Amino acid sequence: MATLLTPIEGAEQFDEKPCRIALAGFGTVGSSVARLLQSRAEPALQLTHIYNRGISRKKVDWVATGVEWTERFDDLLSSEVDVIVELMGGLEPAHQLVRRALQSRKSVVTANKQLMAQYGPELLALAGDNDQFLGFGACVAGGIPVLLGLQDGLAGDTLTRIRGILNGTCNHILTRMEKAEVAFADALAEAQRAGFAEADPTDDVDGLDAAAKLAILARVAFNVDLAPNQVACRSIGEIGLIDFAYAHELDSTIRQISTAQWQDGCVYANVGPALVPNDSPLAKVSGNQNLVVTSGEFGGDTSFGGNGAGGDPTAVAVVSDLVQAARHRCSGAVALPPRMAQPCRVTNDIATAHYLRFVVRDRPGILAALTEALSRRGINVDAVLQKPNYPKSALPFVITLEPCPERHLRAALAEIAAFDFLLQPPLSMPMME
Amino acid sequence: MATLLTPIEGAEQFDEKPCRIALAGFGTVGSSVARLLQSRAEPALQLTHIYNRGISRKKVDWVATGVEWTERFDDLLSSEVDVIVELMGGLEPAHQLVRRALQSRKSVVTANKQLMAQYGPELLALAGDNDQFLGFGACVAGGIPVLLGLQDGLAGDTLTRIRGILNGTCNHILTRMEKAEVAFADALAEAQRAGFAEADPTDDVDGLDAAAKLAILARVAFNVDLAPNQVACRSIGEIGLIDFAYAHELDSTIRQISTAQWQDGCVYANVGPALVPNDSPLAKVSGNQNLVVTSGEFGGDTSFGGNGAGGDPTAVAVVSDLVQAARHRCSGAVALPPRMAQPCRVTNDIATAHYLRFVVRDRPGILAALTEALSRRGINVDAVLQKPNYPKSALPFVITLEPCPERHLRAALAEIAAFDFLLQPPLSMPMME
Repeated sequence: MATLLTPIEGAEQFDEKPCRIALAGFGTVGSSVARLLQSRAEPALQLTHIYNRGISRKKVDWVATGVEWTERFDDLLSSEVDVIVELMGGLEPAHQLVRRALQSRKSVVTANKQLMAQYGPELLALAGDNDQFLGFGACVAGGIPVLLGLQDGLAGDTLTRIRGILNGTCNHILTRMEKAEVAFADALAEAQRAGFAEADPTDDVDGLDAAAKLAILARVAFNVDLAPNQVACRSIGEIGLIDFAYAHELDSTIRQISTAQWQDGCVYANVGPALVPNDSPLAKVSGNQNLVVTSGEFGGDTSFGGNGAGGDPTAVAVVSDLVQAARHRCSGAVALPPRMAQPCRVTNDIATAHYLRFVVRDRPGILAALTEALSRRGINVDAVLQKPNYPKSALPFVITLEPCPERHLRAALAEIAAFDFLLQPPLSMPMME
Repeated sequence: MATLLTPIEGAEQFDEKPCRIALAGFGTVGSSVARLLQSRAEPALQLTHIYNRGISRKKVDWVATGVEWTERFDDLLSSEVDVIVELMGGLEPAHQLVRRALQSRKSVVTANKQLMAQYGPELLALAGDNDQFLGFGACVAGGIPVLLGLQDGLAGDTLTRIRGILNGTCNHILTRMEKAEVAFADALAEAQRAGFAEADPTDDVDGLDAAAKLAILARVAFNVDLAPNQVACRSIGEIGLIDFAYAHELDSTIRQISTAQWQDGCVYANVGPALVPNDSPLAKVSGNQNLVVTSGEFGGDTSFGGNGAGGDPTAVAVVSDLVQAARHRCSGAVALPPRMAQPCRVTNDIATAHYLRFVVRDRPGILAALTEALSRRGINVDAVLQKPNYPKSALPFVITLEPCPERHLRAALAEIAAFDFLLQPPLSMPMME
């Protein structure tokens, strides 16, 4: 096909030697990368080593015979390998091995979002110090080249916000709840049976997976060192089918939205369920797709969408980084990794409209008590929605609020939490404009 | 804001001298570029010259006083300018001036799609010969970094198709026809009055503008030298409100779609109105937005959307290319422009489902005559749609066809054209799957 015929630009001009590649980790993504490299048959990109623990059980017959299989990482460091592709996942030993690779003057390409979220600035500095390339396009949104888009394609703009659907598992569960009217627990169990969700779904459902990706994106977009634990996370586990019913009344749907916003020298960073208007591109993302929408002061909104996970799309991102690593090597230029130098101040005090859903034992005076608690903090009610045909003993209803600072809302909700008519804690979600 | 704090990566390491920039052309995009450069206050990117014919009437007071205004292009060539930004538009003199700039060892950034569509391969070769950077990200889809996405972000994949909405004027007209039930001529006149369409709208409406952009995209995606006149174009001017009514019956809408497909060593390239299913991301592009969806063998579908035109979004693309030009200069690497080496074989013989709309003077036997002409070429009818309440003297109806090779359809339509019951030539449109 087309790119079989596309050698690395400039490779022939500078260096007859191919770029030698080692895979560290040979699971789903590793074997997709090997397959993709073999299908390209690109002389400039040559797979020479595959490292994995317990390598004997990993060997497959379709990998070219010249490739060396090893379970000693040091074999990669002492070889003539140019780029090590880190696909082991997890923080350790990946972190120490990537450090040793860079110190041994090997370039590194990684798909390990936890590693880059936790140690990205340190590893990029180390890559710079050792004149090596460190590619991490595969860490966020799989095959969608959004990191490159932020770093280079929109380099001319001043970005003010990133908003996205970064976790395919949550999007799958929420769209399934919406379309088939399946409760959260059942949709999650289905997704687990189908292999779309992990046995322990906490990282996905509670937003930690998306928070790691958002931290990486925000660093590149705003050039600040945002740590993943500076991203506020809320679980999608509290969302009920009743919330989809009310969302539809508001011409909206519910999605796990990751938001990072640059405001007065601070970053607001948040992952959690949100009400999304039906006419937003984020509302139209179905199944396990990803979408990132950036907002720039000059260019306005730009969107990047596609397959955010899976072996083959992630392998595309890895090989695209390998092409860059090979170009970098051919050009003879030293590494120019993005710098993430500035410490990051975060704020959680941003003014947003909110959706509040209550389930109460009905009696006179409930609405008065709630609106009184809100108005005392200067929070204006936009609308009250109550669907018919629910029992008075467990009555769900919704109050939507005009934009107000989050700290005022938190104070009001703390007071409201003590009201004895509540059958469960109120659910609050930001409403996207 | 954020990127004010982002100096060109590596600039400080390599070269204390800023990258000196000349604007050639100071219209809408030129002044947006100047404004954007001034707002960034980026020491590594320094605007030093502005060239335009009749420069005295172009001078504005908000441009920094050190900038030299000139109406002699030779002043740029003899200066210490590093990059010339070509924003003159049109083929000549832009073509000769860009050639002279590259030969004078100036890098070039251009937003001139006609120039790059017509002379791209020649100019990229010339840039390579002179070790200069030639950036043209602003030629396609304004501020959306889709060219970079194809060239670098998806470099690891084997792309098989590009499909997009590349002309905002046509999309504006078609969405206006759809939403306000305004006839084509009226929607066009409105767009002209509002400044969204040119006085002579031929390039937009007939598809020539989109064809130039598609040729540039296809070259980068498939690494073939597709010329703009190898793109088959059909006007949106034949679309009537009746076609939107039938499209809606088919759960679809109508958009000007640009398609380039790689198939058996040939490129199929086409711009024109098409039936787009409502659940396609392309159906959801409204107003003058652009969207490009690429299909890759490994990564599947990836989309890039946003503002495809306008001074500020185009200026973002120009300045992003300037950042790359500055990095290229800092790294000391020679230019590695994309090569567009392979001659391109085109095919127009691709199997697609079709929508045919007829307007007839009704009488018995019409459907038999039409289906007979189709079935003689082995073309199967999928459905016949006829809305009620139209006069028998000018009856519109639609036949949809199962996928068939275009040449068979052309042969059938040539025979059908002679039928005396037709009040106007039949309208045929491909139907996206």
